[in-house]
Amino acid sequence: MRVIGIDPGLRACGWGVIDVVGSRQSHVANGTVRTEGRVIADRLLSLHRGLTAILARYAPDAAAVEQTFVNRDGAATLKLGQARGIAVLVPAQAGLDVGEYAPNAVKKAVVGTGHAAKQQIDHMVRMQLPGCDPDSPDAADALAVAMCHAFHLRSSNRLAAAIEAGR
Amino acid sequence: MRVIGIDPGLRACGWGVIDVVGSRQSHVANGTVRTEGRVIADRLLSLHRGLTAILARYAPDAAAVEQTFVNRDGAATLKLGQARGIAVLVPAQAGLDVGEYAPNAVKKAVVGTGHAAKQQIDHMVRMQLPGCDPDSPDAADALAVAMCHAFHLRSSNRLAAAIEAGR
Repeated sequence: MRVIGIDPGLRACGWGVIDVVGSRQSHVANGTVRTEGRVIADRLLSLHRGLTAILARYAPDAAAVEQTFVNRDGAATLKLGQARGIAVLVPAQAGLDVGEYAPNAVKKAVVGTGHAAKQQIDHMVRMQLPGCDPDSPDAADALAVAMCHAFHLRSSNRLAAAIEAGR
Repeated sequence: MRVIGIDPGLRACGWGVIDVVGSRQSHVANGTVRTEGRVIADRLLSLHRGLTAILARYAPDAAAVEQTFVNRDGAATLKLGQARGIAVLVPAQAGLDVGEYAPNAVKKAVVGTGHAAKQQIDHMVRMQLPGCDPDSPDAADALAVAMCHAFHLRSSNRLAAAIEAGR
């Protein structure tokens, strides 16, 4: 199964694709969509095009987006929300269910604690996905989101199998 | 010139289309895209489809979106932001520039004061667009956004003409 993780942002949006076979995860690709444009509409359009091209190229079976929210101020949160809307829309347009994980859940799945620093995420992503060199901190976060989603899908599959076996 | 105004929302998104000839504005259509879905991804997809169909049907020359932000809490603002991202993306995908107006600017243009109540907006929209019966308060707001954008486009055209004449 192929999983894409997305760390949304209006200027830089990280993405990471992994393959999952049983409990083994391997790196496929990662990158950063850097949007261009003077106004938000142009950046959203650029983000939509960029992510659509990546989905078409890597054809993932599952997708997950980081569920960040900024409390600093309403305007910043609204901007991030707009980018996030596109990040969720694109995999939904490709017919995929879209998982959503809070940053703490992602850190807990990948590093083992909900309060990990950026560097720890980057380190654990490199450790667990041999040969992977994240393009940016956003791309490392996106790979962590993909890994977190793979863990969760596997747990829910095991749970479903256990329920099935117990019948 | 045909102008569409959009008042974004995740569950209910108002839209209104007007025609503008010189200083005369007339009502074309208005409505509310009510999204369906258990999860946000489904609602965003539903909103994208609904707005895309309206743009295709009425083929406006200009678009504007209300620039709301909620300060109540980060989660609500992020949700609204995601809907707003789609509301801005759809006209941009149709090749239109997208105007953005804060609620106070819309009220000032339509009612004459930045602190108008919902009922006043509905009343002024009905007065200034004879024969128009807004589908919902969101649709009335969307028509007000379209009217505000038409005023602004006309002012900037007059300014450009005055500069040209003064050369």
